[in-house]
Amino acid sequence: MLPKPVENLIKQLAKLPGIGPKFAERLVFFLASRPKEYGQGIAYALMEFNKKIKNCKQCGNISGEELCPICEDPRRDKTKICVIETASDILAVEKTGQYRGLYHVLGGLISPHRNLLPENLRIKQLIERISPRGGKNTAENIEEIIIATNPTVEGDATALYLAKTLEPFGLKITRLARGLPTGGELEYMDETTLTNALVGRRKI
Amino acid sequence: MLPKPVENLIKQLAKLPGIGPKFAERLVFFLASRPKEYGQGIAYALMEFNKKIKNCKQCGNISGEELCPICEDPRRDKTKICVIETASDILAVEKTGQYRGLYHVLGGLISPHRNLLPENLRIKQLIERISPRGGKNTAENIEEIIIATNPTVEGDATALYLAKTLEPFGLKITRLARGLPTGGELEYMDETTLTNALVGRRKI
Repeated sequence: MLPKPVENLIKQLAKLPGIGPKFAERLVFFLASRPKEYGQGIAYALMEFNKKIKNCKQCGNISGEELCPICEDPRRDKTKICVIETASDILAVEKTGQYRGLYHVLGGLISPHRNLLPENLRIKQLIERISPRGGKNTAENIEEIIIATNPTVEGDATALYLAKTLEPFGLKITRLARGLPTGGELEYMDETTLTNALVGRRKI
Repeated sequence: MLPKPVENLIKQLAKLPGIGPKFAERLVFFLASRPKEYGQGIAYALMEFNKKIKNCKQCGNISGEELCPICEDPRRDKTKICVIETASDILAVEKTGQYRGLYHVLGGLISPHRNLLPENLRIKQLIERISPRGGKNTAENIEEIIIATNPTVEGDATALYLAKTLEPFGLKITRLARGLPTGGELEYMDETTLTNALVGRRKI
């Protein structure tokens, strides 16, 4: 019953994560009730984004240039690489203000039943960056790899795989600490979190 | 820190209802991790939508033509107009399969503190449709106006205003029944709903 361009826009929007057909329908009816400039603004922003944005050829971050602002920044500590799953994880780490090193985006986590194997991730590119002769960017002189994958089964599996694969390079390989999240209550912590907090306890 | 086209797309998407800056950021990073065709498909669907979709000049429904498929349909009952707030309400009524008449979209509800006055709604166009001489579409011969605004304070106020304004035309003016929603539990019904159900009780 809906006109074809309406059906099609609903279908396209419903492909986005967190937007189902119902939500997409609501968005389209909202756009229909606004002046045309509204939807036009979004369409132009999308086209511009598609034209200009690529992945940094070094770390995989989203970027307007060949190299992203972090890889380009001479003030960053070029002895450390923080390995994360997606480019949006970079924002999260940057917001802490605690890290001044470089990043490497894996583009996923190892997950055999979702058909994500090590060769589908940007692991080869990471190895290239830390290889003594292979590195394209000679400014990099990596000493430490900080594995910052999610604290989930898949994140843990990927971290273990990486640690084993990168072992021969003789670098320091670390992983984000596990423990109690700030603001949580002991009473409501799950067993694994509490176990990790106990095992990783530190002298104060 | 984010490239300009990324910032801009986040800003544009965050204007949509139900999508805040955080959700918009997630969508943009998702698009960045997919092949370009993905975002391109959405951009084209939006442009097509903007170019082709207008409001039906008779009822205000969203439409690809001057008149929407419902107004054009010769099998629809042209003696009834169901007055609703937005075009998306048409979908809801159509899904019941109980109504074969025409529609009229108001484009909002009377709400003085949101600066929505009767003259901002499509009430003038409704009066034109039911005026004996004024109607542009001579096929219409309206006998009943069904007011189907939301069962809220603003919906009720708008319904009362319409009922009073349309009174001189001597048509049958009805309103959707108020009562218990199917599947609800008496114990949890609010007083107004229960009062309405009592007042509107029917012989079985």
